Amino acid sequence: MRMHYCQQLLTEIKYVAIMKSKLINDGEQKTFAIIFDQGDEVVETLTAFANQTKLKATQFTAIGAFSDAMLGYFDFAIKDYKKIPVNEQVEVLILAGDIAIYEGKAKIHAHVVLGKSDGSTIGGHLLYAHVNPTLEVILTESPGYLKRKSNELIGIPLIEL
Amino acid sequence: MRMHYCQQLLTEIKYVAIMKSKLINDGEQKTFAIIFDQGDEVVETLTAFANQTKLKATQFTAIGAFSDAMLGYFDFAIKDYKKIPVNEQVEVLILAGDIAIYEGKAKIHAHVVLGKSDGSTIGGHLLYAHVNPTLEVILTESPGYLKRKSNELIGIPLIEL
Amino acid sequence: MRMHYCQQLLTEIKYVAIMKSKLINDGEQKTFAIIFDQGDEVVETLTAFANQTKLKATQFTAIGAFSDAMLGYFDFAIKDYKKIPVNEQVEVLILAGDIAIYEGKAKIHAHVVLGKSDGSTIGGHLLYAHVNPTLEVILTESPGYLKRKSNELIGIPLIEL
Repeated sequence: MRMHYCQQLLTEIKYVAIMKSKLINDGEQKTFAIIFDQGDEVVETLTAFANQTKLKATQFTAIGAFSDAMLGYFDFAIKDYKKIPVNEQVEVLILAGDIAIYEGKAKIHAHVVLGKSDGSTIGGHLLYAHVNPTLEVILTESPGYLKRKSNELIGIPLIEL
Repeated sequence: MRMHYCQQLLTEIKYVAIMKSKLINDGEQKTFAIIFDQGDEVVETLTAFANQTKLKATQFTAIGAFSDAMLGYFDFAIKDYKKIPVNEQVEVLILAGDIAIYEGKAKIHAHVVLGKSDGSTIGGHLLYAHVNPTLEVILTESPGYLKRKSNELIGIPLIEL
Repeated sequence: MRMHYCQQLLTEIKYVAIMKSKLINDGEQKTFAIIFDQGDEVVETLTAFANQTKLKATQFTAIGAFSDAMLGYFDFAIKDYKKIPVNEQVEVLILAGDIAIYEGKAKIHAHVVLGKSDGSTIGGHLLYAHVNPTLEVILTESPGYLKRKSNELIGIPLIEL
């Protein structure tokens, strides 16, 4: 019975990030350092952090490195992202984005430029990525709100002020 | 008479941006979210916003997408920017810059990295660009001043502290 | 005697940066504009500034141009950076990084994307670079601390929270 419970639990645990965060400024704006660890997936983990922390209007930048990533290029014809896989170790030259509320939950919007071993670069909208060995994010939350709304004409939710 | 007035008015209206802004932090530093709309030209619109808002020392970062852009690479020989046209839909992987006062008015200085449909990148000094479908700018104004002064030796105005 | 003293002094003076800084926000967070001048080396100069100013947890972004740079791509096999030299005038499309304490002193961690005369890009971890004609850095210090610790497994010091 106990064995059965454990097996069920192990099946349910798909992924546990070991990312850590520290509030380095606790004022009108809150600034967090978020340090991702080897194997952490960035978009899912940052979204979970944003929801747990109930982040309001937020911006972030980051540097570090990924073992792999899936980038996107928005294709107006199909109203979706064309996928651009990156299957090699890359430096994260710049990861920048914002966090707004969409349908009651935090939605990360991030773009990234990655550097290969010869210094050549590849970039796009960040769909997902795995950290190796670290990603150093500095994230600043403002007291205002930003909200996204669905836009059927375009195909992606846009921030509406 | 009225018709004539309207024709004159239509001739004078060359461009109306539909960019919107929201003050998301109103403290010692002011932080604005600025959301550009389809067709907005970035440099002219942001300069107009900076002048209307009388922005002091300001920095900004942005992500989004452009339908086209004109980039520049500073050529010391001609003391001007060599033009690099971008005539395709691109992701704005990172747009970063500052705003300082030059000859009594706001001057935007921005550099950009753009991503094409295959993830390849192109970048430079931002001369102008048209947004499609959105550009999400987070802009922070500090209470200090930054001023540019003409530099005849170099050929472009530099920030002097 | 005086001559000898002067010669000794000139031998000792290897490098004097003419970078200038201005505190543009003096609040819970401190924001500095740092304007580098022609010939200034970025990493050494910014490290010296961080130590003199006793900067706590700090992030920065910058745009400008370099006459040359040495980039790095971290190679796990040798636990060190593979060097990627850049021997031409390039636009600094984005320079982003953080400053943390490592073994009692400030340590800069910065990544950069550079743009060549045709708009093509090259990027990596910033080992060193010389400014030409300017580099405009906006640097924000938070009151918290960030510390790096040696990590023998990886080969580079990582931020530990």
